[in-house]
Amino acid sequence: MSVTLIGAGPGDADLLTVRAARLLGQADVVVYDRLVDQSVLDLARDDAEMIDVGKTPGRSSSQESINDILVALAATGRSIVRLKGGDPFVFGRGGEEMMALRAAGYACDIVPGLSSSLSGPLAAGIPVTHRGVSRGVTIVTGHLLDGECNSFERLANPDLTLVVLMGVAHRAEIARQLIAGGLHDATPVAVIERAYTSTQRTIRTHLAALADTEIANPAIIVIGAVAALALSRLSAELATASW
Amino acid sequence: MSVTLIGAGPGDADLLTVRAARLLGQADVVVYDRLVDQSVLDLARDDAEMIDVGKTPGRSSSQESINDILVALAATGRSIVRLKGGDPFVFGRGGEEMMALRAAGYACDIVPGLSSSLSGPLAAGIPVTHRGVSRGVTIVTGHLLDGECNSFERLANPDLTLVVLMGVAHRAEIARQLIAGGLHDATPVAVIERAYTSTQRTIRTHLAALADTEIANPAIIVIGAVAALALSRLSAELATASW
Repeated sequence: MSVTLIGAGPGDADLLTVRAARLLGQADVVVYDRLVDQSVLDLARDDAEMIDVGKTPGRSSSQESINDILVALAATGRSIVRLKGGDPFVFGRGGEEMMALRAAGYACDIVPGLSSSLSGPLAAGIPVTHRGVSRGVTIVTGHLLDGECNSFERLANPDLTLVVLMGVAHRAEIARQLIAGGLHDATPVAVIERAYTSTQRTIRTHLAALADTEIANPAIIVIGAVAALALSRLSAELATASW
Repeated sequence: MSVTLIGAGPGDADLLTVRAARLLGQADVVVYDRLVDQSVLDLARDDAEMIDVGKTPGRSSSQESINDILVALAATGRSIVRLKGGDPFVFGRGGEEMMALRAAGYACDIVPGLSSSLSGPLAAGIPVTHRGVSRGVTIVTGHLLDGECNSFERLANPDLTLVVLMGVAHRAEIARQLIAGGLHDATPVAVIERAYTSTQRTIRTHLAALADTEIANPAIIVIGAVAALALSRLSAELATASW
């Protein structure tokens, strides 16, 4: 394989898969995002070429230019690792990069990573499913609001946990729509800030109070009965643990 | 920590996290499920005590008896790893085991694993989200039908991908409810059998034909436009690759 898309997981290098860590340590070139932690980048060879294509809000390498960079690198015949935070296929735009490579005639392999949508709640001691409490989970981003009017209304389902990534800026509208869709305004909400860092913090609130809850990015919003499960001791333990 | 709940991921030992592999190799006792692959169990110490609490359909160690075993082991003061297929908090009943341990006064740490709900579609080259195609993903099991009448009807949302685990036996009813809920009967469906094994196979069909599609367990059902994405070359590659 000339190019391998690798999911770097939620941050800590210890939470890469064994395969991802090995392939990263063998690559000639590593192309990475701003969401990838330094401890992960340190797994690369000392002589590997490191290319930052980090997309920061407001100053973006466009996805198209990233695709172009990957295609140009693939043509060199070197061993390329494209490292993406979380999982390449869960809001990672990995599908687009893979398609661009294939359109240019290059093979592409892919290694899954832990998506913060599931591992973030876990870091706070919150099981996204739990017998008698939640029968499934829906994962979306705040950008869902950019599309159809009232798109969160139809996600109001008391049987399921709702995980919202990149939703902090739009939390008032998200809460409004979910309540309009039928969720009780006392529905528990947990917000996990900076999951898997030494400053991880969990905020517990409820849907009607979400708009007025102060939250710092990056944060994962978990909405549903599981957010109130009494596993908060775990949260404190993890926040101070090595990961 | 006396007991650590560890997600073993989708099967291949290479897809454990670095942390999970290390902790598994240090444990005095390993308590495992039937979904955990032998290659994963081989990471345990030669002198580790291996306890199979595998729940096979029809012949079940009850969850209560598993909880009791974990509490009894915790009391020994040995280093216990509870190894679960996938992720402990995504249909893994890890929350119940953690609560049982805490109720008995024992600390419990937890290490996330790759859930087959996301890594299974990836193994078939299917991104669960893709710009312009899918804006999120819902994960449920076929057991959702045990609860509320027509529970799948409200999951009919053309903007999202729907991943159904343990849904093979009930696929006719699931498809019927989704169509009644408003999904087009031509909605693409992909079924991934035996993901991450040498006999992995992807079946492509559509919602109206799902009931009559022959499927062998274990299988993951992916419903939505992403199931038709033309990444099928990837699927063939992965099915023959080392993982």
